[in-house]
Amino acid sequence: MDRPVSFSPTLVAVGIRVGLCECATRIKKTLTVSSPMPGTVTEKLIEDHLVDGQLEPGEEIALEIDQTLTQDATGTMVMLELEAMNIEHLESELSAQYVDHNLIQEDNKNPDDHLFLNSACEKWGVWFSPAGNGVSHPVHQERFGVPGKTLLGSDSHTPAAGAMGMLAIGSGGLDIAMAMAGEPYHVNMPEVWGVELRGELPDWCSAKDVILEMLRRHDVDGGVGRVIEYHGPGLDTLTAMDRHVIANMGTELGATSTVFPADDAVKEFLAQQQRADEFRPLHADDDAEYHVIETIHLDEIEPLIAKPSSPGNVVPVTDVQGEDIYQAYIGSSANPGLRDFAVPAMIVKGERVPSAVSFDVNPTSRQMLENLTEMGHLGELYASGARVHQAGCNGCIGMGQAPASGRNSLRTVPRNFPGRTGTREDSVFLCSPETAAASALTGQITDPRALEETHGIEYPEWSEPQEIIVDESALSPPPETPGGELEKGPNVKSLPEFERVSDAITGPVLMKVGDDISTDEIMPAGSDVLPYRSNIPRISEWVFDQVEQGFYERAQEQGAPWLVVGGSNYGQGSSREHAALAPYYLGMRAALAVSYARIHWQNLVNFGIVPLEFTDRGDYEEIDQGDTLELPDVREEMQNGSEVTVRNATQNTTFSAEHSLSPRQVEIVLQGGLIEDFKPS
Amino acid sequence: MDRPVSFSPTLVAVGIRVGLCECATRIKKTLTVSSPMPGTVTEKLIEDHLVDGQLEPGEEIALEIDQTLTQDATGTMVMLELEAMNIEHLESELSAQYVDHNLIQEDNKNPDDHLFLNSACEKWGVWFSPAGNGVSHPVHQERFGVPGKTLLGSDSHTPAAGAMGMLAIGSGGLDIAMAMAGEPYHVNMPEVWGVELRGELPDWCSAKDVILEMLRRHDVDGGVGRVIEYHGPGLDTLTAMDRHVIANMGTELGATSTVFPADDAVKEFLAQQQRADEFRPLHADDDAEYHVIETIHLDEIEPLIAKPSSPGNVVPVTDVQGEDIYQAYIGSSANPGLRDFAVPAMIVKGERVPSAVSFDVNPTSRQMLENLTEMGHLGELYASGARVHQAGCNGCIGMGQAPASGRNSLRTVPRNFPGRTGTREDSVFLCSPETAAASALTGQITDPRALEETHGIEYPEWSEPQEIIVDESALSPPPETPGGELEKGPNVKSLPEFERVSDAITGPVLMKVGDDISTDEIMPAGSDVLPYRSNIPRISEWVFDQVEQGFYERAQEQGAPWLVVGGSNYGQGSSREHAALAPYYLGMRAALAVSYARIHWQNLVNFGIVPLEFTDRGDYEEIDQGDTLELPDVREEMQNGSEVTVRNATQNTTFSAEHSLSPRQVEIVLQGGLIEDFKPS
Repeated sequence: MDRPVSFSPTLVAVGIRVGLCECATRIKKTLTVSSPMPGTVTEKLIEDHLVDGQLEPGEEIALEIDQTLTQDATGTMVMLELEAMNIEHLESELSAQYVDHNLIQEDNKNPDDHLFLNSACEKWGVWFSPAGNGVSHPVHQERFGVPGKTLLGSDSHTPAAGAMGMLAIGSGGLDIAMAMAGEPYHVNMPEVWGVELRGELPDWCSAKDVILEMLRRHDVDGGVGRVIEYHGPGLDTLTAMDRHVIANMGTELGATSTVFPADDAVKEFLAQQQRADEFRPLHADDDAEYHVIETIHLDEIEPLIAKPSSPGNVVPVTDVQGEDIYQAYIGSSANPGLRDFAVPAMIVKGERVPSAVSFDVNPTSRQMLENLTEMGHLGELYASGARVHQAGCNGCIGMGQAPASGRNSLRTVPRNFPGRTGTREDSVFLCSPETAAASALTGQITDPRALEETHGIEYPEWSEPQEIIVDESALSPPPETPGGELEKGPNVKSLPEFERVSDAITGPVLMKVGDDISTDEIMPAGSDVLPYRSNIPRISEWVFDQVEQGFYERAQEQGAPWLVVGGSNYGQGSSREHAALAPYYLGMRAALAVSYARIHWQNLVNFGIVPLEFTDRGDYEEIDQGDTLELPDVREEMQNGSEVTVRNATQNTTFSAEHSLSPRQVEIVLQGGLIEDFKPS
Repeated sequence: MDRPVSFSPTLVAVGIRVGLCECATRIKKTLTVSSPMPGTVTEKLIEDHLVDGQLEPGEEIALEIDQTLTQDATGTMVMLELEAMNIEHLESELSAQYVDHNLIQEDNKNPDDHLFLNSACEKWGVWFSPAGNGVSHPVHQERFGVPGKTLLGSDSHTPAAGAMGMLAIGSGGLDIAMAMAGEPYHVNMPEVWGVELRGELPDWCSAKDVILEMLRRHDVDGGVGRVIEYHGPGLDTLTAMDRHVIANMGTELGATSTVFPADDAVKEFLAQQQRADEFRPLHADDDAEYHVIETIHLDEIEPLIAKPSSPGNVVPVTDVQGEDIYQAYIGSSANPGLRDFAVPAMIVKGERVPSAVSFDVNPTSRQMLENLTEMGHLGELYASGARVHQAGCNGCIGMGQAPASGRNSLRTVPRNFPGRTGTREDSVFLCSPETAAASALTGQITDPRALEETHGIEYPEWSEPQEIIVDESALSPPPETPGGELEKGPNVKSLPEFERVSDAITGPVLMKVGDDISTDEIMPAGSDVLPYRSNIPRISEWVFDQVEQGFYERAQEQGAPWLVVGGSNYGQGSSREHAALAPYYLGMRAALAVSYARIHWQNLVNFGIVPLEFTDRGDYEEIDQGDTLELPDVREEMQNGSEVTVRNATQNTTFSAEHSLSPRQVEIVLQGGLIEDFKPS
């Protein structure tokens, strides 16, 4: 296979580390000096928001958060956490809540959640973007993006706002709630990965092909522990929304975030959105140094496509062309710009998609729909045979538009993980709007450049209009005097009360499991369970259901406290907080495992469950499910050291376990978790 | 409460029966005479298609069917029945298959069904309207409606085509399959209910208020056993699509069908749809006589609304105005005209719906969307805050757009049965597009006439354009040479093989139930089960699940044959064929009940299960579940009379049961059901 772009192989492998030690030294010094030092955009953003820690890659730092973003699928839990924290008013500069995920509304659960979120926004003073107004990331960029700010969002594609010269990071719900309450955000200081763009994209290629080229080079873990910072002369050819495409899918590289400078493109974007006065420039210094460096020659890009079922599985479109498709799909936060709809519309104008192809168009926002209508592009899409859906995430997150079994679906979305569409045997390719439109027309995977010959279609001339319809009428600003009651439909339940850990814990081992138990086994996902994410009492009925049907009934009968005994890597997999919250609700107060997966271990601490480790694996082997364990001095022992005494009352044995918590974490868990710890005592 | 319209109370109760005996005599005579007699449009249509029977109300007649209509939720079973019948080619003049119900596509099941239907259309030569092309009834009227034809559809709102001077009737799937195979349709000869329209509707009122007035007068059973035929000078003010609104919801009156003449309005409609040459006039004779007569003075109509939770619960909008609403909903086959979207768009133009109101717009068809876009109305709807969905049935049949718990939803759809939206505690009002648009603007139930004062909005001037965009590009015509293989995804399974009833049946009573057992208990509906309607093996897992969890496993273990013993009114409720098909699949071969609900009894016969009745209820009481019953001479006894010998081998007793089948039905059931009976022997 020919590689489509030439580059130095040494840069591909891991990049070249430049002056890491010097850099770290320099940054340490910066902390003691108030004047700005030459540096990258990333470092400037971090310096400007640093509350604690040192700018040394891998070290924990604490950052002040200016803005927060929540969507409805995660926002309900964030609001319930604010409620549990007894928050009266927010400390963030700006918080915005979007309803873009659960728009199908098959029954009362979705709309009840929407009403709850609206009431929460009024109670705490949060911007509210209702169902149908659009996808969080692009709408946030349009209405609230401001260079130089930090943004924390309970959605993994939050880094898209890096297009505006912001530092935007995705995180779990409780982190967002804490940031809204004014707490700093803790993250490991990333390396800064400088990617220089040179030249200009050829016809029939667009920003999506740039980020697909990055994924082709570095796969889905190439960005772990890094912020990707784009720079160089090639930037001038990319609009702020083009950059959004690239920053959004930096998440697929595993990056902590992606950052662009705030330059003329950002200035023009803000002017177009009638917010010119909110522009401020933010550039890397001329002598800025990056931990890792790399170059992309835009001229050498060709249309790329990620094959099933990983965003890193990228090849030139020509490698797979000619395969029949069931679906061509345009939209999502990974291709949300006006041009991402207008260019496909101009491609299909006057043509007719075959009846056998489902050509699904998912508009970004109501504002976008108004502009597409005004410019005539929506009519072109309809006439070509498109199914145009309401503005929102829709099929991108498996909410409808699933393809038929085993049939190919071409999508401009960011992810093609297996089964994410809702169809178990799906076959999803990720591509640019140009490639999706061309393939819609032919009914086969098609390199869009071929249309010139096969259909006599020239590449559409597009230039971003300086003036567009700006419609923010649906966005509800925070009330002048926040307040009022939360509106909880039958499916929205407050968090459980958390209790201070008692001096001693005595209870049965209600569940003993083996190694590598995942959060899916502790608390499953799936369409039956997900609608109850804002209802801990109800969702707790599925706790350990994958391991033992009937566990819920046993736990109900037992009541608190009880323990779980696990093998190594207990709690691997998804970061869902519900895998700690729901067992807590049922009475779990301590875990005893050979080892833990990192995020779940943190979640146990955050929600008041004591996570202990076996000192000797032999002790794990000896315990039987049903044994009564006593931790006679758990509080005092944890405060004084890492060793905790465990007595097996059933077997009449005693052994030592340990914990690996920091003193700060010990304090949190003994208080009954982060929420209790946060409350004023 | 003031009644809004004056009319003679004697007409309300049951209407006046005019010359019924003379009429019946006259029509009998007609059958022997080839020249047309003076009469109603209904009688002319029936006479023209009569294959068997006499035009005497209540008597069974057999009609030749010209056209058939199927939608995807019922069409898959129709196509599987054609397959089971070994049909090579169709006998109907025109058959059309629409995909408009199951458009959400949460997983592979919906799209697999769509592909299956497409392949079935190619195999048998059926028009195929793919997902996103529009709602069956209005699209069928636009593309295929022809005065003077009969139409049979597997959807209860099929009578909408009566707007074109057609006789259109809704029925179960097997009836449609039989009609496609050229078999006549059997129905009881209806009475003809003549409704004279006089005058003209006032501003802010439209066709929906006319049919709501009919429902206010006669409730949901007023039309049972009747065809409603509209006539009179008021007709001149109603377009063919206005009449569609009225004919569509005749179903809510319980009518067999609704009929309009084919006059200038139909001529203009066909010209607008670029099918002027397909017009032929069809009028009632001047001296036509109706079995029941009634008059509506259109000038006296005011905006009406059906309160939760029955279409017959109609009051003036002023009776309920001021109540807060959660949702205003426009669309469905009950308000599918261009004006039903254009007029609301002109009402809300330049205004903004409150953020708290979900203003859901469900366009009729792609063609409609192209026209609304071209005329600027779509942009007006977007700018007002509407959520515009893809063309299809959508929320009308509970596929999304459910309201929040207990919140008011105003909809232009035909039905507001409790829970039909998907929300258990729903509160749905049925109204005109004018009332829905006015209420969307104010956030409260609003008489649209009030907008003149509160918002300075004049009633929009609308006249139906003579020329519109006509787009039939998505409709796939039958191939010149039908054929090919059926494309069955993992969720589409052929019907079971049906066996000739053996000379003797011996098997256990696998289930004994009490009185009034419904088809919901035999074969439930619900969102878990419905996606398996085209998969009898899978859906059979729910047989009797409401009565006994684990029944399926018992039936699996037992295998055919086994029997069910029931009390009186066995099989009441829904007409679903699956309540006979799935038990047959599991091995049920005979039922023995005190009495049966009519439709389920017919379904048992149609799918090869022998339905016997106890001669003495005491025999029912004596039988225990698990007893082995023998019908030693069932075939011979059924062929020779109505008595069937039953021996209880477990209790060592013998008694007589009976059947109430006609000789034709006996032949059908003994062959193994209608499908086997149909096959050439």
